[in-house]
Amino acid sequence: MEKAAIYHRPESEYASLYTPDELRLRLRTKRGDIAAVDCIWGDPYDQVERDGDYAWSYDRTPMRIIAQTDVYDYWGVTVSIATKRVQYGFELTDAAKEPTTIGYGDRGFFPATPVGIKHAAMFRLPYFHDIDRIKVPEWVTHTVWYQIFPERFANGDPGNDPAGTLPWASKEHPGRTDYYGGDLQGVIDHLDYLKDLGINGIYFCPIFRAHSNHKYDTIDYLEIDPDFGDKNLFRELVDEAHKRGIKVMLDAVFNHIGDQSYQWQDVLSKGKKSRFANWFHVHSFPARYEATGDFEEAKNITYDTFANTPHMPKLNTANPEVQEYLLTVAKYWIENFDIDAWRLDVANEVDHHFWREFAEVCHAAKPDFYILGEVWHSSQPWLQGDQFSAVMNYAYTALIEDGVVKKDITPTTMADLLNQQQMRYADQTSEVMFNVLDSHDTPRLLTVCKDDADLMRQTEAFTYLQKGSPCVYYGDEVGIDGHDDPDCRKCMVWEPKKQDQEMLHFFQKLIALRQKYADVISKGDTDWRTVDDITGLVHLVRKYHGTHVHGVFNLGEKPVALRHTHKDEIALKQGLADKQLAPNGFLIYVKK
Amino acid sequence: MEKAAIYHRPESEYASLYTPDELRLRLRTKRGDIAAVDCIWGDPYDQVERDGDYAWSYDRTPMRIIAQTDVYDYWGVTVSIATKRVQYGFELTDAAKEPTTIGYGDRGFFPATPVGIKHAAMFRLPYFHDIDRIKVPEWVTHTVWYQIFPERFANGDPGNDPAGTLPWASKEHPGRTDYYGGDLQGVIDHLDYLKDLGINGIYFCPIFRAHSNHKYDTIDYLEIDPDFGDKNLFRELVDEAHKRGIKVMLDAVFNHIGDQSYQWQDVLSKGKKSRFANWFHVHSFPARYEATGDFEEAKNITYDTFANTPHMPKLNTANPEVQEYLLTVAKYWIENFDIDAWRLDVANEVDHHFWREFAEVCHAAKPDFYILGEVWHSSQPWLQGDQFSAVMNYAYTALIEDGVVKKDITPTTMADLLNQQQMRYADQTSEVMFNVLDSHDTPRLLTVCKDDADLMRQTEAFTYLQKGSPCVYYGDEVGIDGHDDPDCRKCMVWEPKKQDQEMLHFFQKLIALRQKYADVISKGDTDWRTVDDITGLVHLVRKYHGTHVHGVFNLGEKPVALRHTHKDEIALKQGLADKQLAPNGFLIYVKK
Repeated sequence: MEKAAIYHRPESEYASLYTPDELRLRLRTKRGDIAAVDCIWGDPYDQVERDGDYAWSYDRTPMRIIAQTDVYDYWGVTVSIATKRVQYGFELTDAAKEPTTIGYGDRGFFPATPVGIKHAAMFRLPYFHDIDRIKVPEWVTHTVWYQIFPERFANGDPGNDPAGTLPWASKEHPGRTDYYGGDLQGVIDHLDYLKDLGINGIYFCPIFRAHSNHKYDTIDYLEIDPDFGDKNLFRELVDEAHKRGIKVMLDAVFNHIGDQSYQWQDVLSKGKKSRFANWFHVHSFPARYEATGDFEEAKNITYDTFANTPHMPKLNTANPEVQEYLLTVAKYWIENFDIDAWRLDVANEVDHHFWREFAEVCHAAKPDFYILGEVWHSSQPWLQGDQFSAVMNYAYTALIEDGVVKKDITPTTMADLLNQQQMRYADQTSEVMFNVLDSHDTPRLLTVCKDDADLMRQTEAFTYLQKGSPCVYYGDEVGIDGHDDPDCRKCMVWEPKKQDQEMLHFFQKLIALRQKYADVISKGDTDWRTVDDITGLVHLVRKYHGTHVHGVFNLGEKPVALRHTHKDEIALKQGLADKQLAPNGFLIYVKK
Repeated sequence: MEKAAIYHRPESEYASLYTPDELRLRLRTKRGDIAAVDCIWGDPYDQVERDGDYAWSYDRTPMRIIAQTDVYDYWGVTVSIATKRVQYGFELTDAAKEPTTIGYGDRGFFPATPVGIKHAAMFRLPYFHDIDRIKVPEWVTHTVWYQIFPERFANGDPGNDPAGTLPWASKEHPGRTDYYGGDLQGVIDHLDYLKDLGINGIYFCPIFRAHSNHKYDTIDYLEIDPDFGDKNLFRELVDEAHKRGIKVMLDAVFNHIGDQSYQWQDVLSKGKKSRFANWFHVHSFPARYEATGDFEEAKNITYDTFANTPHMPKLNTANPEVQEYLLTVAKYWIENFDIDAWRLDVANEVDHHFWREFAEVCHAAKPDFYILGEVWHSSQPWLQGDQFSAVMNYAYTALIEDGVVKKDITPTTMADLLNQQQMRYADQTSEVMFNVLDSHDTPRLLTVCKDDADLMRQTEAFTYLQKGSPCVYYGDEVGIDGHDDPDCRKCMVWEPKKQDQEMLHFFQKLIALRQKYADVISKGDTDWRTVDDITGLVHLVRKYHGTHVHGVFNLGEKPVALRHTHKDEIALKQGLADKQLAPNGFLIYVKK
């Protein structure tokens, strides 16, 4: 038995309340090393008399393998107990010819005997506190998002175009400082388009007053940027979206502020005497930097910034005045405009203390509010129930890109690493992760796919069968391409003839399927039925309450023969003919 | 290489800010499996040009083994970076004849090559936020505690004795409901005794108005129990203690309240119409239970309680009214009486959300306030810097009891498990852990040692060389014995002839030694120089800035010959004669 590989961590993703009464426990072991695991559990105060002596009275439940990687097996079990107090341990039996059984508890290993258990220290969840439970908004499990970069989605009101606005889509490749006149009226004008597409959540890149076209350099968090409209128009937008069952998420850039803000300008003009001097991290006054050829790169900056960008001074969120200011902002847009979610830019560089206060304020204003952090790496520190609902799941979708699009990793490696990512979080967190394949910060998926629309559709179909809430980056659905920022921010294509209609219809069908089977896809078990590195065939089954959604994908270079094509149950397909699934082909069918 | 054993967790005890600028990183591997580990680290935004391409610019630092168990090696390194942003990974080389080197980062393993590093996802501490850092009160590293059970320490004022008070120490074994008249005046009268003993912190069991002699069934958190005195007397006690350099810690019983409290009495009389109905967890009204022969055990209780005790109804700390009430209490005794610490009873069964608010309130009132939770199992969820400073370290001292006193485990197993316990927490947390060998909740150490005073002294000496702040349970220093509660709550012995003077002088010397070498013992490295299961000899060295405190202990059954006895450097010894260290003997010497 490989003891060094056995792992459990109390009150983490390994021991998490799924509902107020259900504790989901996990144990990690070396792959193939352990043949069986029993969980022993009970109320720590429950004693039973045995031979004139008192001993802990416990239950025993077998665990099952819930996920595997190349290195690990993950075992899972759910326990419930009326007194809401539990202690627990594990009994592991290895897969050797002459099996060994040992116990594993809070102070390490113990003999798997009644005496061993009696003297062992068990793991504890001392009380099932619902206030500490990771709670996620249920509506997100039923949401397909649509990300809008407002300057480029639609120009509904030429009257608010900034000076120098270029004609819509007049350049094949937009420049870093171009303006095309996109605005909120443009979004309102196309809400029915979005409704027809089937999405039910809009994620807006920043819309507050800012200097640049991307608006990540906020000047005033309490004003709509005049290039986009005003508050009345925004209220109308939210109302009209809500009427259509569409939720609205705004982008909060709280790590840093724009250097044109009055707070930073005051620091520049008054130095350490500025009343905002402690709103930032200025190491020596006057605040300054040495410019380089690159606008976004400076040297010897005397204050903390986002990256090395002198135009985005970092806010000191440990300062109670800054906290109060930003929390006022957080609340203002919920209470006055009824927004449903905040997406938090560069969320990982802001302190946890602040995010805890932020979450309290948001949930007090709207209990089922969704808080989405931009974190690209593993995110357990933010996802314990006291801060974010979810993060932008780049760590997950990057694996899909590597495995499905680029083929940098084998199907087996991809499945292993996807499983590993899911095991980093509580189940309810995985259910509301924000699954982005591309965004304003990355090349567009079609370009990553080298303009292979079949491959792009296959990738989307694969992603839509994963746990988590998928997001369409505006224009992907009509075949827009684009390299890295700023090329991924092209103007939306509205002329039907210029739109890829096949792609649009595909997205409509895929989104409809995701909505129809939202419970299965968000909450169901994942069964990697076939993962074949030789043919490239991947057969994935998502199961929930008797409904099975099957996805079969050919990630290989040659057609693969299928024994059954489940003709009558097909929900979506590509590249299927004569019982052959072509490369880039896929098949989604449903059994009940 | 045993990949399945390799473990790191960002923003945990494996990656924790020790000071505002020092990040301490740890990595766990299978014992003996890995020959060398390099940490590669740098600012994620720092790029360097290589062959016309940009790549991350990183540093490389070898890690060293900081602790070992039978199963694991723990590697450590400290990194500092001016921009306060860091990403990092590990390069591991195994101990095989033909060594393999691989990288380990945020998404698993990667090739240990420049290309591998370039494409790998690294672990992150996105920004060094001091507000999130685990901060502990420095004074605790220099504190030896003395625990007082007030009803049994000294009767300074017979005028406040409750009806039926028995003459002091009139029974050999106190009964569960006896009263002996101990009070606050008795403590004041003996502050000079405590000062002479050398302790500099008092931990008081509850002193608020309550029904029982132990006062854990609080009636009013804002009143001193009249059996003990009043607020003026308590203020005098704190002032006099502070004058002598002695800190004061009170016991807060916030998990439950006494059933004689007006809040619970209101619920009993008014049922669900009581304005306190939601202060508790009542599952059905009227609140009731079926008594058993045991006062502290009931059946079919319709409300949540501490253990199965119907007289201690559990408080609903998720109710904002309850929060406000208890936080007022927390603040009241700090602001008005200048107490230095709270010890939190049954702290593990109260929600984290409440403890976070509690910590904010206490630290706002007194920045270097010490918060000590009663948690008997592993305690990472409470020790992330946002809740407690430390816990009562039973999980640690139980191993000393098993290894030194009972010999249930070998010296090697004891050392391994002690190391494992330390690796569960950040270094600064281990430095202020509350190391109790006995208390009002356990048999007295002398009794556990079967009245072997030598063995007890050896155990104390061993414990005092460990990281953490030790505590003398009142009377241990004069040789009081006692079995489980209530026998461990005997009256303090004040007549010099009845005191074990040898034990008292030993404690004075041991405490003086702990105070003199407080920095070495609390902050120093631990080197298990010799751990010999055959002879039972354990030689432990604590090292800090050139000072080495050595402890040599004979845990075996026969005398052990020593080559050197370090005669001139001996600080404390027992059982040493003719270069022979007797069973239960020990030797502490210091080298600079």
